[in-house]
Amino acid sequence: MRVLGLDPGSRTTGWGFLDGDARVLRAAAWGCFHGRRGTSRSRVLAGLAAELEALLGKLEPHVVAIETPFAARLPKAALALAETRGALLAVLGRWGGLVVDYEPARVKAAVVGYGRAEKQQVAFMMSRQLGTTTPPPSDAADALAVALCHLRCAVDVLA
Amino acid sequence: MRVLGLDPGSRTTGWGFLDGDARVLRAAAWGCFHGRRGTSRSRVLAGLAAELEALLGKLEPHVVAIETPFAARLPKAALALAETRGALLAVLGRWGGLVVDYEPARVKAAVVGYGRAEKQQVAFMMSRQLGTTTPPPSDAADALAVALCHLRCAVDVLA
Repeated sequence: MRVLGLDPGSRTTGWGFLDGDARVLRAAAWGCFHGRRGTSRSRVLAGLAAELEALLGKLEPHVVAIETPFAARLPKAALALAETRGALLAVLGRWGGLVVDYEPARVKAAVVGYGRAEKQQVAFMMSRQLGTTTPPPSDAADALAVALCHLRCAVDVLA
Repeated sequence: MRVLGLDPGSRTTGWGFLDGDARVLRAAAWGCFHGRRGTSRSRVLAGLAAELEALLGKLEPHVVAIETPFAARLPKAALALAETRGALLAVLGRWGGLVVDYEPARVKAAVVGYGRAEKQQVAFMMSRQLGTTTPPPSDAADALAVALCHLRCAVDVLA
């Protein structure tokens, strides 16, 4: 199964791609969408949408797993994050494949075994999982964790 | 000047188009994007994005004026509204024309003369402005008000 995980952020959106199942990972790739700085919000979101479109065409995932918003401390940041999510979801709706939502606590529980794990723990577990010596950047690690959560949850569903 | 006003909502997004200036309106059109019910959030937002794209092609506005989010009472509704705004902004960013933001209080002040006016007052003033006997539906009236606000503010800037 080819899963693309997305971790939308108000500034940076991480993505992580996993090909495999809950036991064996055949391939992995990750990165971040940054958006162009100093341009208007609409240009940034359009850039983000174009980057996601290109990535969907390149990776051809079976499923996209996206992290749901949680109540952020700063209302402004929560709104910006929701705007990002909206721009990404519109692209995914046009793409037409399966889109699955995961709450942050569920992602952490699936990857670290603890729903309130810190970001560093997630990055550490993902780098161990991938067999890399340096952990992926934190936004990408979160996105990889969403993808891994889907692989593990999909097994639970089938089991 | 051809101005398209947008009033993003968590369920319904109103649009209102005005062709003219602060003194004379030559043409007006309005309506709502609804999104298909019973489909996933990503499909709804993709449908909304497609409706806006089609409208931009048909109306060829010089400017799009969009209402900024305000702190909604229900955090969930505020997040859904921000998602809608994000999907619309991504389309506008790709469209590439001028996009202007207006706060709700400024729109009301420009149209009704009072920043805390009720929705019905906005609809009433817009129907008087347009010379229609029945007021436009409330979401479309708000979008028309955003467009009218831009026409009036643009005059202030030039004056």
